[in-house]
Amino acid sequence: MTAVTTDNRQVRLAARPVGMPKPTDWKLTSEPVREIADGEIAVKALYLSLDPAMRGWMNEGKSYIRPVAIDEVMRAGGIGKVVASKSSKFAVGDYVSGTIGVQQFWIGQADDEAGAFYKVDPKMAPLPKYLNALGMPGMTAYFGLLDVGQPKAGETVVVSGAAGAVGQTVGQIAKHKGCRVVGIAGGKDKCDFVVNELGFDACIDYKNESVREGLKTHCPKGVDVYFDNVGGEILDHVLAKLAMKARIVICGAISQYNNTTPVKGPANYMSLLVNRARMEGIVVFDYADRYHLGVAEMAKWMKEGTFKTREDIVQGIDKFPEALLMLFEGKNFGKLILQVADDN
Amino acid sequence: MTAVTTDNRQVRLAARPVGMPKPTDWKLTSEPVREIADGEIAVKALYLSLDPAMRGWMNEGKSYIRPVAIDEVMRAGGIGKVVASKSSKFAVGDYVSGTIGVQQFWIGQADDEAGAFYKVDPKMAPLPKYLNALGMPGMTAYFGLLDVGQPKAGETVVVSGAAGAVGQTVGQIAKHKGCRVVGIAGGKDKCDFVVNELGFDACIDYKNESVREGLKTHCPKGVDVYFDNVGGEILDHVLAKLAMKARIVICGAISQYNNTTPVKGPANYMSLLVNRARMEGIVVFDYADRYHLGVAEMAKWMKEGTFKTREDIVQGIDKFPEALLMLFEGKNFGKLILQVADDN
Repeated sequence: MTAVTTDNRQVRLAARPVGMPKPTDWKLTSEPVREIADGEIAVKALYLSLDPAMRGWMNEGKSYIRPVAIDEVMRAGGIGKVVASKSSKFAVGDYVSGTIGVQQFWIGQADDEAGAFYKVDPKMAPLPKYLNALGMPGMTAYFGLLDVGQPKAGETVVVSGAAGAVGQTVGQIAKHKGCRVVGIAGGKDKCDFVVNELGFDACIDYKNESVREGLKTHCPKGVDVYFDNVGGEILDHVLAKLAMKARIVICGAISQYNNTTPVKGPANYMSLLVNRARMEGIVVFDYADRYHLGVAEMAKWMKEGTFKTREDIVQGIDKFPEALLMLFEGKNFGKLILQVADDN
Repeated sequence: MTAVTTDNRQVRLAARPVGMPKPTDWKLTSEPVREIADGEIAVKALYLSLDPAMRGWMNEGKSYIRPVAIDEVMRAGGIGKVVASKSSKFAVGDYVSGTIGVQQFWIGQADDEAGAFYKVDPKMAPLPKYLNALGMPGMTAYFGLLDVGQPKAGETVVVSGAAGAVGQTVGQIAKHKGCRVVGIAGGKDKCDFVVNELGFDACIDYKNESVREGLKTHCPKGVDVYFDNVGGEILDHVLAKLAMKARIVICGAISQYNNTTPVKGPANYMSLLVNRARMEGIVVFDYADRYHLGVAEMAKWMKEGTFKTREDIVQGIDKFPEALLMLFEGKNFGKLILQVADDN
């Protein structure tokens, strides 16, 4: 018995990309949705999360998570609806968050680690928020900033990719903790958004102004915490402006993910010595047992109206390959999400 | 009244070097030793410490210490003997450690911060040891390793510049703390020394073997703590072999100090993310109020015979310019010291 009587369209990895992923690096496939077995559930994908980290998952080699295999359905976190269940864990109609993959339906054991599904409540927040501040980007921002960055009230926090999913959340958390917050983003619209809508103290438009000069202007006492999503030259500019005992949170390096030449290491890293500063990496999964704390605090701020998030939603599973590229071209404005189906 | 009736030969900075310091970047001068005034002392230089950090002091620009000015006597720590005193702090005949500069005599207020002199005891250890394990290199090693690196028994500690002043001390402290210790040094003699004389578990000869392969062989569980004195490619090789939650202590980057091209940043720095690792700078002066603890523990080990140091002593103040280059060419074997005078 199953409620599902349709095909499952899927996006699979066809080849390991060299540089920017090409259309031919993907394969769109379709297979019938099978009956579910005992203990299994079928989840209909509604929203999928598109993240810079996906580029890393497409490469071979040791990382914090195993690479997606060739011909495998591309890994993606998402929000879906349980449309069939032979498990006591989930009922038909439940909304869940988990690793759905870039496909219309996920089918498997309800308690399988591969899915790692947990229920979300559409009454508490609109479903896309669970892929943004209340999801992985939000948890990355929350624990990366607070646990690794350890900002103190009055300190200056700089965040790159400021209008992106992680960046917008980092900045707002830092404001809630009493910090001066300076964003770095590409374009006037994004900079206006984080300053006027999210309450950042300033934003440097790296596409139209000198990051070096901007840091000088907006961080007169130097940078105490830098939350880095981009790497590359911007990281070097911030290194040159560190305050004593500064902390750099290494969350990503989107400027380097599609390199065909070697990664540009931070030439100014000796500023760590001069300033007795530290640079540390963060992987969000390490904080899984404390996610609920981050969700609770940010949901409270959202209810108070002192915490906003913005999503950029692209429609249709077939759009996955081109939508992903928006991240690397800086074309998304807010958390990038792929809507796969309507909720009906 | 003064016991000093001679000239004071000095080495002054004549020009800011581009790349490796040239003979013309120095000026040898001589001036009469003046009478001392109330509160002053005259210190006769015996041994001067030659350190990689000196190269940084010769550059303009913000650092952890102000640059040496053009025409100023080159900064150097050293051990000397008080030969005249109008201060109650020191008596004629006292042996002292402080910032003497590259000159035969230092004269100034006994409590002047510029000298920062404190007494040392030649009966407790031979004077050159106070420029090695019982001096700045030793304190750098002790607090850099223990406070920043935080090694735990059973962990693997890797140190570059292993036969140098800081490196030999780092490795021996780590052995005392129950770690597996792998050195990286240039040449068979140095490697044999740290393994056979100092008790390191292994040493990779970067001049004659692949550092990458060496790390693979000698660090089967990855690198928990890396104490970096050299930067450059070796730092990248170690980054590629980090264990989870590894700590990198940034103490120096001797391979990059004489660059005329931009510093080579660590291209593998994203390993910090993958391994939730951290890279942190250390400046020894921050630990001044705890030096006595480091001295006490290492002096105890020396007395027990479980801690050795090696010095490489060059004779004559005129030799300073060429002796300094030995550091950057890896020609010194042990802590490099310039003997300026005999103790008489």
